[in-house]
Amino acid sequence: MYRNAAITALRRKMEQMNVSAVIIPTNDPHFGEYTQDHYKTREWLSGFTGSAGTLVVTLSSAALWTDSRYFVQAAQQLKGVQIKLMRIKMEGTPTIPQWILQQYPQGEMVAIDMSLFSYSEYRTLCRDLSPCKVLLTEDLFDGIWENRPPLRFNSIEGLGIEYAGETSKSKHQRVVDALGIGDRRFAYIITMCDEVAWLCNIRGTDIEYNPLAQSYAVVTNNSVHLFVNLESVGEELMAALGEQGIELHPYNSFTKMLQQLPPSVIRVVSQSKITVRDYQALNIPDAEFMDDPMVSGVVNCLKAVKNNWEQRGFEKAFLADGVAWCKVLKFIDDALLKGEALTEWEVGEKFAQFRSEDENYRGESFEPIVAYGPAGALPHYSAAKESTQIIGKGNFLLMDTGAHYLFGTTDTTRTIPTGPLTPAQRRHYTLVLKGMVRLSMACFPKNTRGSQLDILARGPLFNDGLMYFHGTGHGIGHYLCVHEGPQSIRMEENPVTLLPGMVISNEPAVYMEGEYGIRTENVILVQEWKYTPVNDFYNFRTLTLVPIETSCVEWNLLDSAETQWVKLYNEHVCKTIAPLLDKETAQWMVEKYL
Amino acid sequence: MYRNAAITALRRKMEQMNVSAVIIPTNDPHFGEYTQDHYKTREWLSGFTGSAGTLVVTLSSAALWTDSRYFVQAAQQLKGVQIKLMRIKMEGTPTIPQWILQQYPQGEMVAIDMSLFSYSEYRTLCRDLSPCKVLLTEDLFDGIWENRPPLRFNSIEGLGIEYAGETSKSKHQRVVDALGIGDRRFAYIITMCDEVAWLCNIRGTDIEYNPLAQSYAVVTNNSVHLFVNLESVGEELMAALGEQGIELHPYNSFTKMLQQLPPSVIRVVSQSKITVRDYQALNIPDAEFMDDPMVSGVVNCLKAVKNNWEQRGFEKAFLADGVAWCKVLKFIDDALLKGEALTEWEVGEKFAQFRSEDENYRGESFEPIVAYGPAGALPHYSAAKESTQIIGKGNFLLMDTGAHYLFGTTDTTRTIPTGPLTPAQRRHYTLVLKGMVRLSMACFPKNTRGSQLDILARGPLFNDGLMYFHGTGHGIGHYLCVHEGPQSIRMEENPVTLLPGMVISNEPAVYMEGEYGIRTENVILVQEWKYTPVNDFYNFRTLTLVPIETSCVEWNLLDSAETQWVKLYNEHVCKTIAPLLDKETAQWMVEKYL
Repeated sequence: MYRNAAITALRRKMEQMNVSAVIIPTNDPHFGEYTQDHYKTREWLSGFTGSAGTLVVTLSSAALWTDSRYFVQAAQQLKGVQIKLMRIKMEGTPTIPQWILQQYPQGEMVAIDMSLFSYSEYRTLCRDLSPCKVLLTEDLFDGIWENRPPLRFNSIEGLGIEYAGETSKSKHQRVVDALGIGDRRFAYIITMCDEVAWLCNIRGTDIEYNPLAQSYAVVTNNSVHLFVNLESVGEELMAALGEQGIELHPYNSFTKMLQQLPPSVIRVVSQSKITVRDYQALNIPDAEFMDDPMVSGVVNCLKAVKNNWEQRGFEKAFLADGVAWCKVLKFIDDALLKGEALTEWEVGEKFAQFRSEDENYRGESFEPIVAYGPAGALPHYSAAKESTQIIGKGNFLLMDTGAHYLFGTTDTTRTIPTGPLTPAQRRHYTLVLKGMVRLSMACFPKNTRGSQLDILARGPLFNDGLMYFHGTGHGIGHYLCVHEGPQSIRMEENPVTLLPGMVISNEPAVYMEGEYGIRTENVILVQEWKYTPVNDFYNFRTLTLVPIETSCVEWNLLDSAETQWVKLYNEHVCKTIAPLLDKETAQWMVEKYL
Repeated sequence: MYRNAAITALRRKMEQMNVSAVIIPTNDPHFGEYTQDHYKTREWLSGFTGSAGTLVVTLSSAALWTDSRYFVQAAQQLKGVQIKLMRIKMEGTPTIPQWILQQYPQGEMVAIDMSLFSYSEYRTLCRDLSPCKVLLTEDLFDGIWENRPPLRFNSIEGLGIEYAGETSKSKHQRVVDALGIGDRRFAYIITMCDEVAWLCNIRGTDIEYNPLAQSYAVVTNNSVHLFVNLESVGEELMAALGEQGIELHPYNSFTKMLQQLPPSVIRVVSQSKITVRDYQALNIPDAEFMDDPMVSGVVNCLKAVKNNWEQRGFEKAFLADGVAWCKVLKFIDDALLKGEALTEWEVGEKFAQFRSEDENYRGESFEPIVAYGPAGALPHYSAAKESTQIIGKGNFLLMDTGAHYLFGTTDTTRTIPTGPLTPAQRRHYTLVLKGMVRLSMACFPKNTRGSQLDILARGPLFNDGLMYFHGTGHGIGHYLCVHEGPQSIRMEENPVTLLPGMVISNEPAVYMEGEYGIRTENVILVQEWKYTPVNDFYNFRTLTLVPIETSCVEWNLLDSAETQWVKLYNEHVCKTIAPLLDKETAQWMVEKYL
């Protein structure tokens, strides 16, 4: 068991440094959803592989904080290692500062890696940990983690104008206009790799499930400074970037450039998206500084509104994905009919296999979720090859998968029955569908926020005393991250209004613990609907092209408009996808869904 | 024309004071929705009688800012007086500071009455008017306004425990607990007359349409200090207040008490609900101070959740009001049948007349809106006796009225046809009803905010490209103000969650300018619905007992649950109200609505 030994080694280092506690987060210096293995110190040290969690090691104790999605998994994975599981938001669970202060009420030194914490997190910790002091350190694991995966820099590809729909130069100009700083010199610091990718029209493969390159950018009045591994940029791309006025710098020179910014330059940066190290490099106290999220979020907001080419690309992506989905659905149907023992993992593999038949396929956009029966009630279940279940006959099979294509990113969930269902199962399936359809049909005036629409998806479940504890909709990148902001459709307030061109998921669900999970997810595009004397109205267009299972619909729970929506949707999907399928699959599809 | 002369007199005073501009607001020192005539300086000086508006007089010019509800009315009422109308939120309309700065870009003295502006308004003005200086003055109108109505102090009545349901002593204890300040001494400053009324279980008649006494309160750890006109308190009430530990002080000694607070006492106050004068009296810089709205809004929040006795009182109020409404509806029906010339004003009077047959009636809760045809499209239309219209035959008659009873306050809107309607009118009527019914039927988990539910009422209209520009729901006081916070159901975010016991209106509408207005309003009560394994759920109970016109419903636009709701509602209303009516009215009601 290397983990206990590693914790001991870390404690030895802590003692040398005169440190009583270390906080080990999940992120990397770019604050994205995924990191390279190199940064997975929390996972390596604890054994817990979930996407969210913070490990704290003190001289005498250790604990891992994670949220309800991972309570079961974390408890299993922490077996055999001296780490206590801390269930976030459960009664009696202390916060990290509370727990540290219980052990060191007099105040000791608490270390954090200054390249892994944002400046705003650091400030909060300083406040909440008092009288403990926060010590900013370099990476603590280089001497401890043997065979640590190195930081990976794969080759970078340029995204052609026929996919991006807008040159980097034009994006730069729009960013400068949106910042509205005028003639004064500024440096707008961009640390999120997907924002860099959008701005510079580049894509990479450095980060699992994300078509991103490890990169930073600094936007100034006249140009974009791009920080990447220079060996990853081929000659052709280098020329193309130069043409767009993009200045290349080595990835590792980012902090140095921040240090060298003249004092008179206005720094535009989000304190929650910059590491303590880089924030300190900016010499903020001596310079002007803007942290208004409406300003430092400019690229994020511009990126969220897809241009016409990107919208057309999404359509092509969902077309390609619809073809693959239909092949998988038929494959499952056939296997179940024949009585073959089919596993969740195999189904996940089938998605990748059928998708890869399209030459523009660039990989899965997240780890596929294929979950049979009770596993479907775990929203983030993922079947590993070693621990996958055989798909039984008489419950729901929930599949949530997506892919990247050169022209767009997809994310679709379908739940299908593998045998006879109970009346409650049919009712729950129908209520989830009803919510999905209601949101799909929504019309709303400009300036509407996602939180105003959320109840359309949840309402039918609320009426049965049911609810799901995740958002209804998240933004989706254009051949970028499958989760992106700033828009959302959730119960929580988010001041961002929905704008034509925004792409967003629509995924109500029911989770019956220990029994089954149902989720139906389409991706929808905000579009202009009509201008009336009282206001401008928008509505949604559905991009997803995967038929919806109707054998388990209780039609009397849908009103006539909802029923018609479902029937027209399946008709549209069949008409669009069937011509692209082999004859047998096309025939199966039409018979099943028309 | 006294108004031009009055403005000249004001300017003379301004010159003596070396002041270049005066800002004259609509409110009084209590920041309620209504004020006594004594404070209506803006109305007296401009002639504009709307409920919202700010007048600014400079040495050479004058202008009145008001919102879209009042554009037409203000333009008419400002005729003949040298005051420019400023239409708020319309393109090209400057803000008040912008307009003053246009005239005095070098910076002059701008006067405001320190008893009429809140401290937060004052701070904002100081910032926005720079380089002009803000001069704090006493009342400027005493020498100018001849025959100015004096401040009125009518007698105060105690609200018995059988109506209030909770003693003042118990309320004081709950306030102290909710503040959560602990053992330290505090003074919680309450300037809103309705909060004082709730806390001390008193009611008055000082303010039109509001059962309030001019009053302040200061809550300390051990008692409530009540500031009222002492002559208005009879012996019995004085004894009752004393029993509750309430200490009486003269109304005019409020500021002095604030001045005399020891420095060590924590001041709890909302900067937007205290005058500059009183804020300065608090000597804040030398004392501790809390302006957290969650703290300074404690009384407002406790008041909003009605106890069982208050809820039962509301039921009785809506019963009494339902009886009066049915009599009015029949009265209108009869008059129209007979071809009598009936005016809007007469209908408004009829409401008061029939209501006053109940011994517990305490007056109308706001100026009745009875609006025929195009007048219905003006959300705040009110027919004066001199300018009322005769109700025609072939359009909608919109009636929005409410009353105070000793046991509760009502607010109901019904729209009825007075003759044949167009298909569009029937459609719009049905969509408004559909929205009202959808919100009535909502089920939702605890911690839901009103902004999440708003679309249930608006959605059917959005689908037709229609919308209304006011909120869907406002809180309603218990024999208190017909508009109260903190809860609301509107498009705008409001972090207050809906709690069982909150009473709120449900009033979607359509306004077709120049043609007609439709609004249907019930009052609903948040109640516990059911506890399920996933969450606690709430829903609404409708309190209003006035039948809904169904002759103009397009039933095919309602789904079966909505149709059933309307039918059951009218059945319930008839069953409840008919036994309380004379035989003829009862029969008319049953025939018309069952």
